[in-house]
Amino acid sequence: MHFRTNIELMSGYVPGEQPRGQKFIKLNTNENPYPPSPKVTAAIAATLEKGLQRYPDPLGTAFRVRAAEVLGVEPDWILCGNGSDDILTIVTRAFVDSGDVVRYPAPSYILYKTLADIQGASCDVVRYEEDWSLGYEFTAPLPRLNLAYLANPNSPSGTLLAPGEVAAIADNLPCPLLVDEAYVDFASTNCIDLVRTNPRIMVSRTLSKSYALAGLRFGYLVAQPQVIAQLRKVKDSYNCDALALAGATAAIDDQAWLRENVARVRATRIKLFHGLEDRGFKPLASQANFVWTTHPSNAHEEIYLRLKDQGVLVRYMRYAGWGDGLRISVGTDAENEALLAMLG
Amino acid sequence: MHFRTNIELMSGYVPGEQPRGQKFIKLNTNENPYPPSPKVTAAIAATLEKGLQRYPDPLGTAFRVRAAEVLGVEPDWILCGNGSDDILTIVTRAFVDSGDVVRYPAPSYILYKTLADIQGASCDVVRYEEDWSLGYEFTAPLPRLNLAYLANPNSPSGTLLAPGEVAAIADNLPCPLLVDEAYVDFASTNCIDLVRTNPRIMVSRTLSKSYALAGLRFGYLVAQPQVIAQLRKVKDSYNCDALALAGATAAIDDQAWLRENVARVRATRIKLFHGLEDRGFKPLASQANFVWTTHPSNAHEEIYLRLKDQGVLVRYMRYAGWGDGLRISVGTDAENEALLAMLG
Repeated sequence: MHFRTNIELMSGYVPGEQPRGQKFIKLNTNENPYPPSPKVTAAIAATLEKGLQRYPDPLGTAFRVRAAEVLGVEPDWILCGNGSDDILTIVTRAFVDSGDVVRYPAPSYILYKTLADIQGASCDVVRYEEDWSLGYEFTAPLPRLNLAYLANPNSPSGTLLAPGEVAAIADNLPCPLLVDEAYVDFASTNCIDLVRTNPRIMVSRTLSKSYALAGLRFGYLVAQPQVIAQLRKVKDSYNCDALALAGATAAIDDQAWLRENVARVRATRIKLFHGLEDRGFKPLASQANFVWTTHPSNAHEEIYLRLKDQGVLVRYMRYAGWGDGLRISVGTDAENEALLAMLG
Repeated sequence: MHFRTNIELMSGYVPGEQPRGQKFIKLNTNENPYPPSPKVTAAIAATLEKGLQRYPDPLGTAFRVRAAEVLGVEPDWILCGNGSDDILTIVTRAFVDSGDVVRYPAPSYILYKTLADIQGASCDVVRYEEDWSLGYEFTAPLPRLNLAYLANPNSPSGTLLAPGEVAAIADNLPCPLLVDEAYVDFASTNCIDLVRTNPRIMVSRTLSKSYALAGLRFGYLVAQPQVIAQLRKVKDSYNCDALALAGATAAIDDQAWLRENVARVRATRIKLFHGLEDRGFKPLASQANFVWTTHPSNAHEEIYLRLKDQGVLVRYMRYAGWGDGLRISVGTDAENEALLAMLG
C-alpha cells in the first residue's frame, strides 16, 4: 500500500477548533456572528422543496450571471467553488506539478503549505517586512516557481496591500498570482479591477465570512476567461450542490444586507481594537473581521487557555521562527464586551 | 501564464446533458426519479433554520457514526466526500503522482481518465471480456501502476463482478483497488466485507443514485483506518457542507425508505428490460438503475436524437474502438411507458 511519499510525509492541515455540543463564545475561526440574509434561507428552502434528486448545474450559471453584474465582469470570468479552499485547490492543481515551487508570504494562511505538500511541490516562503509590506524577494525569479499566493487582507495580521502594490507584484512576478480575498469585503479596497489588465492575476473570494455562510461552502474565482476555461477541466463536475448554488445566488444578490452586515462588523472591530489597547495589548489595525494582537507580557498561550477556560475561544497562533500571538474574530457587541471584560 | 502541460492538453470531463428550463423526461444521467426521503428534507430544513454562519464538522462525525452502524464498520473506516467524485479525486491525488499509471476497464466510467489526466498520469485501459468479466491483463504487473479503478456495478453495462472475483483481482493486483459502488444498492451483492480482510481495497459510495440526492453532493469511502488517516490529509478541510451532512445522516438512517425505493426502481428496471426486448433491442441484464442496450440496426445515435426530439433524454455513448449504444436510466413507471411507446 504505497501512498505518494509527499502524502505520507506531510502532517496535514489542522483547521481551528470546531467544538461540538459545548457552548463557547467562538472567536477563533473568523465566522460571521450574525445569521445570513433571510433571502438566502428562503432561496435554499425553495430549492429544497423542489427535491434534490436531480444533479445541479455543473457551471453554476445563475450565480455567475448575478455575480458578474455585481462585480462588473462577464459570467465566463467566474468559476464557482465548494468554498474558496476548493478554488485554491483547483488553481494549485492546474499550475503546480510535483517538483515545482510555490511562493507565499509568512505569516499567512497555513493552508498554502498543505496545498503545495499535496502536489509534491516545495515552498518559497517570504517573510513580511516589519510594516507588513513585501520586499523584492517576493517577486524574485526562481526556477520552477509556478504559482504565488497572496492573502489580501492577510491573516493573521489583518493588513492590506493596496491594489497598486499588488499590481506591481504581479507585473514583476515570473508566475501567476492568486490574490486570496477571503476577507476583502471588510476592507477599504479590492483587486478585482486588476484582473482586467493582467491575465496572470486571479482573485478568489468566499461567502463564508462577509455573507455569513461558512456552513454552506461557497467560494468563487475571478480571472480572465481563457484562464477559467482551463480551470474548469480541473474542478469536479458537480462541485457545488443545488442548495449552495441557490443560497449563493441569493446572497450575492442581496448587497444591501452585505453593506449593513459589514458596517456592523467594522463598528465592533473598532471597539475590539480600542478595548485591547486600553487593556495593554498591542493590536494591529485590521481590514478584516478579526484583530491580530500581541501583549507585552508575551503570555499569549496562557491568555488563550484562560479565555478558553472561561468559555471564550480565540485563536492562538505560533509561527516557527517568527513569533506568536492571538487572532480574535470580531463577534457581536455582546460577545466583544464579554471578551474584554475577561481581559480585565 | 503556464498551466501544467497535462492540463492544457486534456479535453476535460463532459457530464451528461443537464438541460435547464426545458421539460424533458430525463433518463440520461442515472438520477433517481423519486424525491428523497421526507426525513432528509426535514433534517436539512432544521439545520437551515439554525443558521449557516458556522463552519460544519470537518470530519462529518454524525454521518460516520450512523453509517458505521448501518455498514458494520467503525466510524474511522469512513471518509466523507462532496459526492463520490470528490472521493475518487482524493484517492487519486493520494496515490497517483505525475508519470504514474492508473488502470481501469473499458468501457466504464469516463471520469477515471480525467482524474489521471489531471495528475499527469497515464492510463492502462483493459477491455472487458465478451461476458463482462476481466481477464489476466487487469491484474498484470506494470511499472508505476499505482491505482486501479473498478466500477461495480459497471456503467454503462450495468454488470456486476461477484465479491469473490473482486477479492481475487485485489489479491493479484500490484496496487490498491478502488471499487466504485455508485450503483451497488440496486445490485444483489457488494464488496464492503472485503475491506476488512484486504487493506488495499477501498469502496466508494454515493447518495446521488439510490438515495435520490444527486443535487446534494454526498459520497463516502470505506477503507481501513490507516488508509482513511492518510486520505484525510488530502481532502479539503470542510469538503462537506452543513446541509449535506444533515441530509446525508438522515438518509443513511432511513434504510426503510432505501429498501422501498430500490424495490420500486428494480421493478421498473425489469419492465424496461422486457419492453426493450419486445421491441427488438438487445438489452443487458442490469444490476444498476439503468439499462444498457444496443439494437441490431446499430442506429443508436438516430434513436437517441429521435427520442430527444420527442422530449425524452437518454444517454448515447460511443467508446472509441469498442462500439456504441444507449444507456437508459430507470425512471418512474409512467416515464418508462412513455419511452417504450416512442420506441414502437
